[in-house]
This record gives sequence, structure tokens and C-alpha cells, in this order.
Amino acid sequence: MTSSTNVLLIGTGGVGTIVAYGINYVGKANISVVVRRDYDKVSKEGYEIHSCDYGDIKGWKPDNIFPNVEAAASNQYDFVIVTTKNLPDIVKVEDLIDPVVTPQKTTVVLMQNGFDLGRPIIAKYPKNVCISGVSHIGSHNTNGVIHQTQKDKSLISYFENPNLTKEEQETKTKEFISIYSNEKNNCTYFPDAKWYRYRKLVYNATLNTVAALTRVDTGRLDFSGGLEAVSIPAMREVISIAKADGVELPEDVINLVVHSDDGDWFKPSMLVDIEKGNPIELEVILGNLLVVAKELKVETPILSLVYQLLKVVQFKLKEDKGIIDPLPEKRPISDKFYS
Amino acid sequence: MTSSTNVLLIGTGGVGTIVAYGINYVGKANISVVVRRDYDKVSKEGYEIHSCDYGDIKGWKPDNIFPNVEAAASNQYDFVIVTTKNLPDIVKVEDLIDPVVTPQKTTVVLMQNGFDLGRPIIAKYPKNVCISGVSHIGSHNTNGVIHQTQKDKSLISYFENPNLTKEEQETKTKEFISIYSNEKNNCTYFPDAKWYRYRKLVYNATLNTVAALTRVDTGRLDFSGGLEAVSIPAMREVISIAKADGVELPEDVINLVVHSDDGDWFKPSMLVDIEKGNPIELEVILGNLLVVAKELKVETPILSLVYQLLKVVQFKLKEDKGIIDPLPEKRPISDKFYS
Repeated sequence: MTSSTNVLLIGTGGVGTIVAYGINYVGKANISVVVRRDYDKVSKEGYEIHSCDYGDIKGWKPDNIFPNVEAAASNQYDFVIVTTKNLPDIVKVEDLIDPVVTPQKTTVVLMQNGFDLGRPIIAKYPKNVCISGVSHIGSHNTNGVIHQTQKDKSLISYFENPNLTKEEQETKTKEFISIYSNEKNNCTYFPDAKWYRYRKLVYNATLNTVAALTRVDTGRLDFSGGLEAVSIPAMREVISIAKADGVELPEDVINLVVHSDDGDWFKPSMLVDIEKGNPIELEVILGNLLVVAKELKVETPILSLVYQLLKVVQFKLKEDKGIIDPLPEKRPISDKFYS
Repeated sequence: MTSSTNVLLIGTGGVGTIVAYGINYVGKANISVVVRRDYDKVSKEGYEIHSCDYGDIKGWKPDNIFPNVEAAASNQYDFVIVTTKNLPDIVKVEDLIDPVVTPQKTTVVLMQNGFDLGRPIIAKYPKNVCISGVSHIGSHNTNGVIHQTQKDKSLISYFENPNLTKEEQETKTKEFISIYSNEKNNCTYFPDAKWYRYRKLVYNATLNTVAALTRVDTGRLDFSGGLEAVSIPAMREVISIAKADGVELPEDVINLVVHSDDGDWFKPSMLVDIEKGNPIELEVILGNLLVVAKELKVETPILSLVYQLLKVVQFKLKEDKGIIDPLPEKRPISDKFYS
């Protein structure tokens, strides 16, 4: 279709493809996508999608398909949506999107897991709006075929940019919703991104991380005593940071979070990543939170230690993926004196 | 051979078999052994041993071979040597040896890894001597064949029993050395078991545990930052507990411990256990230390958290081995309120 609004989406996995399809379905914007691994297949055959929202689709093609971000830079974009995993210790989103962000024009939409994701974007693009999308979709890309099993439900707000007025940020956010929200999905404006991201962290920084470190699901974490000994005290640290940051979480938030996996032996995302040998979203789930804790002088003995331990795990995950330089066969001897 | 000194050894793995053979080699005591898994083979064919200390041996049989501890209870023993892994959360040594310990007579010899191992033995057998053996042997039992690759070097002392005089404890300890020490091995009296066990813990409670938890060798622990962020601060906690317990460790102990694996990508015992799916010696390496820390009111934020995390790991190891009751297929819903 032809439209004056140009949208680029980077990261056409299970989530990103459904977002791109949803924008195409609304029909108010041109939708371009960056497809790396499946570029040849998608540019020839289009997407095969089995969606609980949109039904069975074969051969769908976005308006433009690019093999990488550089190739997409031939156009200018009103919105650049990032639906990749957020791994700043491997690829920084603000650098990834550099070729396709026009200063003062392009709105950056981060539909990603994690906390305080807007900070590096706003630092690098101080006059651009940065939107926060929290998606509750269940959707997976299996060998290039998209299977969406849980409805596309998303809460959209913006990461506060002090260089811009609230009005222009809110307007852009609502404009984004208007090109994406349709009668098949559930895309709503949520006024307080910060509150919502803190609320999610009560789970993610404490149950997701500790389950990953100990390699058990959240049910076994409870049965083995780790929930009460580690995760719940860690939740109290998250609540303290939020409070120091002006965010008041519900009084019963710990109880709500603990019971959120009731009835399931549930494996959170970081545990699934570790089991697959994939790097974990440690920096955006825990590292960014600890930066804020430090700025606000909140003590975080448990979260800090869990973070340091998971950094070791992340090192090994990266080594096994060949993301860091290979280690020498013989361990080098350091002459450092430790005390 | 016939002798008035009766010795029973429980746990004829790589270490235990060489200890039993060494006692037989000296020839001052009758040596009986409890052999569980390999009972049929050993009672028929004897042991096959390839030893850097004693050479190649085929068909060696101890004086008596029993399939379990109960069967061994037909005799009375002067010494009962335990060379099993020490896993009090699965089997308590003081209960295991109950059928073969004669009160006021049998000296219990614990040739095992860990800290404060004598406490439950002395509590249950208050008038018996309890000897501490720290072995530096390298020896493995592979399908019933013993391969000893590193010399049998052991330091023998006793766990202080306040109900007995120093003299009788020292006498028994030296008597044990006299039936075991020979010109092929290196078995010496070490006057201060407590000091030595604390010294070992500076490594075991901090590098062994953290390597196990993060599943990397000690070299990668260093490279990834975990050594400086977690293990070294944990070493300072061990040193503080020792100090409060009247034990002064060398000033450069941290440096010595950090450099003890220099040149090697070394996997400590708990990591090896986890990789093999075996339960870890968590309670005797870390749990017992934390009991003492609590009694002495020493703060241990890092060690305590590492312990709680490894308890979760241990739960899963036991579950996978079928040591605990199977969990229900559907996770039971608790109605507990968490805050």
C-alpha cells in the first residue's frame, strides 16, 4: 500500500512478524522489515503465519524487505520498531538503528523486555521520541514459519525524554497506536511506562534471574526454598529501588508475583535461553536496574550478587556461541597479587 | 593376616581402596571393607589396582569383604574409616556407621572433604575419638578397577572432643598413623585439624562453590570477573569466621588460594559432580561453615546467598537422581500469602 507514514521493523521473529502484519492489516502505514536469517526465503515466498488473531496466512510480504539495517537506510522512517532481543553487551540498539534514525524525525519504538531501555536511545537521539511497548503475545518463529498461540496484547507508552514536551511524546505514542491497533489485537495506551516496567521487574529481576542461575523452573524454586530465601528478599530490593525512584508498587505485589505461575512448572525466559545456549537479557533485566539503584543510593546486596553470578554465566554463553575471542588452550598465569 | 587391631573401611572408591591396601601393606591390622556396588566382583576376583605408589596388583582381597554395614557388624572394630562422599542431607555418617561403632572403643576416622565433620560424630559417640584425615591422593574407581595417578599424601589429626583428654586423642591418632603409614605413601601427623580445614575452605567455600553455581572452571571464573566480584569477597568472609573461631590464617592466604590453579582451566569437585549429575557436598563444604558463622555472630552475606542458591541446585540434582519423592505432574497451588 502507499501511505505517507513509513515504518521499519527490525527483528522479524515470532513477535516482530505479528506486529508487522498487524500494521499492514490496519493499512495506515508502509511497513518495511529487516530480515536477516530468513531473507532469501521471505523475499521469495513471503511469510507463512498461523495466528490465533489473524488466522492462517501464506505468502504475505511486507512493503519492503531488507537483508540488513544498512540496506534499509535508503528510505527515511517515521517509526523504527525494534523487536529483537535486547543484548547491549553484544549489540547496542542505539548503534544498530543508527543508519535508519533521522534526528528529530524518527520515533524509536522498543518492543522489548527489560528496564530503562530508553536511556541510551534518548542519550544518542536527544530530540527523538522513544516509545515503550510491552508485549504479552505468545508467538514463535520455527524455521521461518510463525506460530502465534497467544493473543497480541500490548501496552504502549513512552520513555520520558526531558528534551521534549509531554504533549509531543504523547501525540507520537498515540499516533503509533493508531497505525498498529486493530480489531484483532489488543493494543492500548498505558500512561506510565516506568511504573509498568518496575512492576514487571518484580518478577523478572528476581524469579527469572534466580531460576536461570539455579536452572530450575519457578515451581521447583519454590519447593526447594529458593523462592523464600533468595527471590522474595530480592523483590523487596526492587520495591525499594522503585520507591526511591518515585514509583509506588501495590502493597500486595510480592504475593501477586509469587502466585503468577500458580499451577505451572514454569520456565522463565532467561532459563529457556540458557537451556538453548543463547545469551541472556541480563543487562536490561538486571544491569540497568542496578545502575538506577546505585544512582539512588539504594542497597541491593542480593540483586548485585545474582547479577555478578549471571555475568559469569553470560560469559560462558557468549564463549560457547563464539561471540568473544577464543580463550588460549593453556590458562595464562597472572602475576597479580590478590588480597 | 591375624592381628589384634580390627579396622573397617566404608567406601572403597578410588581413595578408600588405596587406603585399605596401604593398611594391608603395613600389616599391623586386620582390614575389612564394605563394598556395595562391586561386592560380587570383588568377593570373587578381588581388586585390580594400578597404583603409582604400589604398582600393578590383581586379585587383592582384604581380610573381610561385606556387602553392607549391617553385615560388617558381626565384628567389633578398633577403627572405622569412612571414605565415602559426605552428604549429610542424604545419608548421615553418624547413622551409617552406627552398627559398627562400639561406644568408648571404636575410633572413627573421617577421610572426607568438608568442615567441622567431627561435630555430629562426637555428639552421637561422646566417648569415642574422631580422627580427621585430609587426603591429597588422585585415584579413581572406573568400573571396579582402581587407577591411582597421584601419590597418597594425607594429613592426619583429630577433631577435638571435649569429653576426652588431648593425650588419648593424640595417642589414638598416632596409632592410626602407625597402621597406615608406610614407605610407599606419605601419611603425616598434622597437629591442628581445625586450622587446616579452615585453610582448605578458603578455596572450597568460595571457588569450588561459585564455579559449581556458575558452571565454569576457575580460570573462566577469573576471566569473567566472578573471581574478584564474588569469590574473593567470599574468601574475606571465611577469614573472618576463622578469626572469630580463634584461627589465624596466613596474611597472603587469598593470594595463595587464587593462584593455586595457575596455568590450569581447573574444574573443582562440586562442578565435576554437577556435570556428572551427582549431588554436591554442599552441607559439609558450606553449610557447616555457616552454622559456625551464626554461632560466632559473623556476617556472611555472600556465602549465605551462594549456599541458598546451591541448595536449589542440590534439590534438582537429588530430584534427577530419584533421591527425593517425585514431584506431582501439575504444580500444586499454594494459598500462602507472601509479603
